[in-house]
Order: sequence, then structure tokens, then C-alpha cells
Amino acid sequence: MAKKILSNQPPKGTNDWLPEEFKLRQYIFNTWRQVCIRYGYREYLTPLVELADLYKAKSGEDVGGQELVTFYDFSKRELCIRPEMTPSVTRMVSKMYAASPKPLKLFSIANFMRNERPQRGRNREFWQLNCDVFGSSSEVADLEILQLSLDIMNEFKAPKNSFTLRINNRRLLEEMLPFFGIEDKNNQELFRILDKYNKLSKDEFYSRLKTLNVKADKLKDIEALMSNDKKVIEDLISSSKKLKEAKDEVDFVIKSLKDLGYSQEIVFDPSLVRGFDYYDGLIFEVFDNNPKNMRAMFGGGRYNGLAQIFGATSFPAVGFAPGDETTKLFLESWNLIPNNLYENNFIYFPLLDSASLLESQKLAASLRRDGNNVYFSLEPQKLKKALDLANKQKYNKIIIFGDKEKAKNVYRLKDMKSGEEKEFILK
Amino acid sequence: MAKKILSNQPPKGTNDWLPEEFKLRQYIFNTWRQVCIRYGYREYLTPLVELADLYKAKSGEDVGGQELVTFYDFSKRELCIRPEMTPSVTRMVSKMYAASPKPLKLFSIANFMRNERPQRGRNREFWQLNCDVFGSSSEVADLEILQLSLDIMNEFKAPKNSFTLRINNRRLLEEMLPFFGIEDKNNQELFRILDKYNKLSKDEFYSRLKTLNVKADKLKDIEALMSNDKKVIEDLISSSKKLKEAKDEVDFVIKSLKDLGYSQEIVFDPSLVRGFDYYDGLIFEVFDNNPKNMRAMFGGGRYNGLAQIFGATSFPAVGFAPGDETTKLFLESWNLIPNNLYENNFIYFPLLDSASLLESQKLAASLRRDGNNVYFSLEPQKLKKALDLANKQKYNKIIIFGDKEKAKNVYRLKDMKSGEEKEFILK
Repeated sequence: MAKKILSNQPPKGTNDWLPEEFKLRQYIFNTWRQVCIRYGYREYLTPLVELADLYKAKSGEDVGGQELVTFYDFSKRELCIRPEMTPSVTRMVSKMYAASPKPLKLFSIANFMRNERPQRGRNREFWQLNCDVFGSSSEVADLEILQLSLDIMNEFKAPKNSFTLRINNRRLLEEMLPFFGIEDKNNQELFRILDKYNKLSKDEFYSRLKTLNVKADKLKDIEALMSNDKKVIEDLISSSKKLKEAKDEVDFVIKSLKDLGYSQEIVFDPSLVRGFDYYDGLIFEVFDNNPKNMRAMFGGGRYNGLAQIFGATSFPAVGFAPGDETTKLFLESWNLIPNNLYENNFIYFPLLDSASLLESQKLAASLRRDGNNVYFSLEPQKLKKALDLANKQKYNKIIIFGDKEKAKNVYRLKDMKSGEEKEFILK
Repeated sequence: MAKKILSNQPPKGTNDWLPEEFKLRQYIFNTWRQVCIRYGYREYLTPLVELADLYKAKSGEDVGGQELVTFYDFSKRELCIRPEMTPSVTRMVSKMYAASPKPLKLFSIANFMRNERPQRGRNREFWQLNCDVFGSSSEVADLEILQLSLDIMNEFKAPKNSFTLRINNRRLLEEMLPFFGIEDKNNQELFRILDKYNKLSKDEFYSRLKTLNVKADKLKDIEALMSNDKKVIEDLISSSKKLKEAKDEVDFVIKSLKDLGYSQEIVFDPSLVRGFDYYDGLIFEVFDNNPKNMRAMFGGGRYNGLAQIFGATSFPAVGFAPGDETTKLFLESWNLIPNNLYENNFIYFPLLDSASLLESQKLAASLRRDGNNVYFSLEPQKLKKALDLANKQKYNKIIIFGDKEKAKNVYRLKDMKSGEEKEFILK
């Protein structure tokens, strides 16, 4: 066996969650879970790996392409670690859709992997909530998904101006294609280019648009759309019935959210595209306004056509997916991590007298049966050292059970904050 | 884009957890978590992937060999999906060990992958609790790990004779090597062969032993050990001080568990080996006695030497790892799944009157604020259909808020089991 020394660091783009870090992630996950359950959504989980084709089909050139982590199984099938949940859950739902009462409201909290360049807010391994409604094409389903997104932000106690909810409709973008002189078959490619508007230089942006045969005089219209030029956009929308219909869907959800009392910044953003190929209706993102972040925390949208890749009758679907890293950065930069999150609510039980091992363990077991969480020291310890340690480790309480207590058939429980001690008779 | 139809089945050896299945897994996970927290263990998580060398070093010829799911990252490092937790958590602890108060008591609940032949109780993707103590070489740490194992079984309400706790000591096996005429350098290989005693034919077993130069007359001693021949084993142990010391450790934990009131079948089993190369002290397994299963549900042991692969000063460690599949089979075959697990505790809220969408949603929001979990139908529904659906879906309660109720400024809450209805004034 090789005797080489191995690194004790996690692979690039991944993290160890030591217990304190775990508590923060768990707080995020539990908050997500709580809001979903409040709306009657049921939790599910899909496998860690899927056939690679599942994501190559519709996840786009990055997530479904160069970032996919692939390998082969014994039967030479190309598998991959899931890079997102939408195709996976659509696959799962396509098995159960016909036999299920509609709409199906589902959520999951799972880990994913993308082989991308790690950066602030983006890790190779990351966790997401995925929350979706299947089987309702109603605008009310869109609305509920937006309510859930806002309720999650409220549950995290997000200050009023800490984020902006931006809403658009992929059908608005699609209906604009003829105005830009772009053929229907190029719509996915156009969306991919538009989605990178902020990442590409103006030259790169124009040169990628030119591959779609966009005429020079149309480039400035696309530029006006992406820079959110209200005049140009309103003129364009009012010139077409289909554009107006798509815009009406956006207006409905924005008005309804306001009627329901959501007072956050909620805006129509015609330049919003989102990166996945499968979106085909409402799309939205929650944008973190903190100057340290200034990025989409998460987003979602409608993907009514995705189920067709399984040969299933298409079924309507809408959902969203917040991630753990962007949520963590949001909570940190807006100072929203609860004060009591890292409190140690265990009782510390030092073994003060080796000869009382059995009695000490019986007492610990009885305290546990009474609903207490008891950390037993295992190794013998002097009382002074035990008190020091309980203090440093911020234990709320300590059990004192030395030879004196044993002789009196009692134990003492000391509150580490108040210093108060109570004596109890051994059962 | 290819228009080929994709399968909607999960890859071989993996499962979709639909909401009912998810509830069962969650019950298993929550039970594990609850027992660990009761003992003052803190939860952590490591990455989904690690450098492949981490498992090749000490996870044995199967888990660390042919079953490892590997791939390469951008920098041509060979990574793999974690096939088990022990090397990962040892890596993590080796970063924090020096600065942490000892003993460190940690647990995690995570998913793993092994490219093995799927069979009853074994999936390619599976979940495990991993529960470990770092920094105590005391027998009391061994004892606590066994207590935790038994408390988990008790928490699942395992009947008294449903399982057997089998205990051995790797040092007993090691100290036997000279008696079998096997060189020290071959101990790992011997353990690998012994661990497969029940899987290999007698001929295969003997022929693998012969590769270690075991003489013919020693084969029957090894056979006696593996078939648990008490006379031969007792004679062997009583002939060596080191063997007696190793046996004393086993006797200590068995006696202590009985003194603490554990009344289950707890036995010394000298033929127990366990599959991982890193074990070097106490080893144990919980064996499912159900005729449908008859297999180890889970096991664990001491691995004091493992940290050395990181060049760290070695630190003592002991732990165990139950899996989700074997636990599920145990619960099913002993009929231990709680009756109320699949109860639907959501309130069903049908939209009875499209014109009351806003008022209905406001009412749903107010019910949610009061701590109720409310599933809103999204699509309009007639009362009769709504009641039918609530009945079929086993909702406990339904909200009735049609045009009549709206006119009276009330809503009604109906208990689906008792049929009882209560009327409330709208806030």
C-alpha cells in the first residue's frame, strides 16, 4: 500500500461544513422546508446521478454542456451528477402524472454539481431548494410560486429594500423575434446570447447576434430591450396583440402580489432572460441589492414543454430554485443570521469519578430519557477543568456528580450563565 | 437539438423517492438524528466528491477499488463520488483536531455511491448515518458508540429478538496471525479473505488462503475460527496474554451494556471481520434476525490509525454507520413503520368561486400565519368535487369559502373524519 501523504483539504469548489457551518445551512434548509410545507407542498428526492442526456437536452450550453460532471457505468451508459433538479423532477413526475390528482405541489432540498470556475456565491457542489407546481397552467400557479419566493424572503426577515423581484415572460421575448428579424429556429440561441448580455463585451455580444443574421439596424432595438429602454419596449408591446397578452400575464402577478400586501420592490424587467432552454412562460429572479453581492440570488419560471422529452403528454409546470451559497451571502451581508443559532443547548456531563462510571452513565441515560441532550465526557475529569471547559464551550448547563454527591445519593445541575445550582435526588 | 425520447426511469441502482417514500426515509433520518443529538453529537457534512486516492488508500478492494465511481476535473485530478464517510470525516477532523476540545463527537447523514450489483438491501446510491467519536481511546468511547447503536434500535421500537449485536476485536484477529503462520504484512489480505467467508465457496476460500502461504494443517484452525468453534477459540485465547487483553475489551463492553440494562442479544463473535482495511480495535455489527433479511444491518468499529494517511499525528477514533436501505427492510419486515406516518395533515382549500380569488388567497395567507399548512387548489372547483378529492387524498380538514360564505363574511372549517363543521368570521 502506498504510504504517500494525502491532502486534508476538500477538492476545489467544495466545502466541509464543520458543525457551526452546518447549523447555518440547516437554518437555511429548515426555513425553505417550513415555507413549502405551509403551502401544502410535499417533499421528494431524485437520484444523485442521471443519464447525461437528460441535461444535455434542455439545460443549456453551460449547465448541460461543459459543466456537466460525467462518467460511465458498467454498461457503458453515460451518467452524470445532477447539475440541477428541473429535468430530474420532470422525469419523476412524468411517471406519476397520469395517476396523481392535480395540481401536484412538490419540493426537494438536494445537492448538485457543476464543473465551473468557483467564485463568490458559486461552488462546484451546491445545494438548492426546488419547489414546483405540476398540472396547472393557471396564472394563479405562477402567482403562488412568486408568493412562496417572497414568503421565503420574509421568513429570513429580509429588509424591505434588500432585494428586487424582477419578472418577465419568455413568450414576450419569443414574440419579439420577428421584430428583430430572427427566425423561430434560432430562439434558444438568441436567449442564450441575451442571457449573457452582462457577461459579454459589447463587441462579443454583437458578433454573437450577427451569427443569427440580425441586421445592423435591429441591433440597436435589441440593445434597447436589454438596457430596459421603456419607450422602445412599450411601443413594441403595444404594436402586437400577442405581445400585449404576454405582458398582461406579468401585470396580473405583479398587481396580485401588491393586492395581497407584498410591499417589496416587484418590477417588470423585459431584459430578464434566465439561462435554461426549457423556460417558456413566466420567468423571474430575486436580485440581491447589497453592494457586496448585486446578483440574482435565485430565479424560476414556467416550463410547460419540458415533459415532452420523455415522450409524455406535455404537462404544465412552474417552479423556482434558491441555492444555499447565494442565500448564505444574502443573510451574512444583510446581517440576518439569528443570534441564538450557535448556542450550545447540550448539558455537559463530566466523569468526575472513574469509580462511578456505571452510576454516571445510568444518570446520563435517565436525563436523556427525560428529554435532555447530554454530552458525556468519556474520560475522567477534575471538576475545575470540567467547569472551565463547559464555560469555554458555552454549554448552558453542567451536571456535577462526584464522590460527595454519590455518597449523598444526589446530583447537582448548574446553570452556567446564572451560576445557579440545584440539587436532585438520584432515582 | 435531438428529438429522441428519453427514459423516465431512474438509473439502475438508484431510486426516486416519491412523497410517501420520502416520509419513510425522513422518519429514519430524523430518528438517527434525534438519538445522536440526545448524546450531544454535532452534525457536519463533507463534500459529495473527494480525491479518489482518499478511498483507494484504506477502504478495501471493493469499496476503494472496483466499486469506486471516478471522473477527472479540469486539472486532471481523479475525483470520485464518496463511497463511504469514514476517510472523509477523518480528513475533515485532521484539519480541526489540534484546536478542538476532545473528544469530538460528530455525526452526519449523507448520500454515497458504489458501482456495485444492486440487490435487496444494497443500492448504488444509498444514505448513511455516520456517528463517530474522535480523540478518546477509552473503552468508554467504544461503549458509548454501542449504546448509540442500541438506542437507535430501541427508538425504532425493535422487538427484543429482532436483531443480534455481534462484537469482536480486530486486535484479536491480528494477534492470531502467528498462530496461523501468517506474516504480519499479510494481515489486510487475510481480513479481506475472512470477510468473504460467507460469500466464497469452501474451495475458493481455501485457495485464497493458500496465496498467503497458509499451511494445510492451519486451514482447519482458520475454519474453526470462522465457524465459531468455541473450544478451539477459547484454547487459543487463553494461550496468549495479548489475545486475552483484546478479549477483555470485548468482555468489558458486553458486561457494561448488560449493567446499563440493555437486554438484547449481545454476543462475542470471533468470526466477525468487517470489510474495511482501517479497523484496528473493537468491531461490531447489528445483525437483522428476520428470516427475510438475515444480514448485517450496519456495523462499525475503531480506526485509530486512519488519520496517518494525512500525515497528521494519529488520533483515536471509533464510530458506526447504519444505512437507509437495510433499516427500511428491517422496519418493513418487523412491521415497525408508524401508523400515522402517511397522514395528510394539510388543510385543503378549494377555490370555490373564481370571483373570490383575492379574498380566498388572503384567507389562506391568514390561516398560514396562524400556523396551519394550507394547500390551495389554484384552479376553481365545485364543492362536491372538492369534498370528494379531500376525501380521496385523506386531508384531515377542508376550508369552505364559497359565494354564500363570502356574503356572510365567514368561512367554514370541516373536519373530514368527524364531519364536524365550524364557522369563523373573516378577519
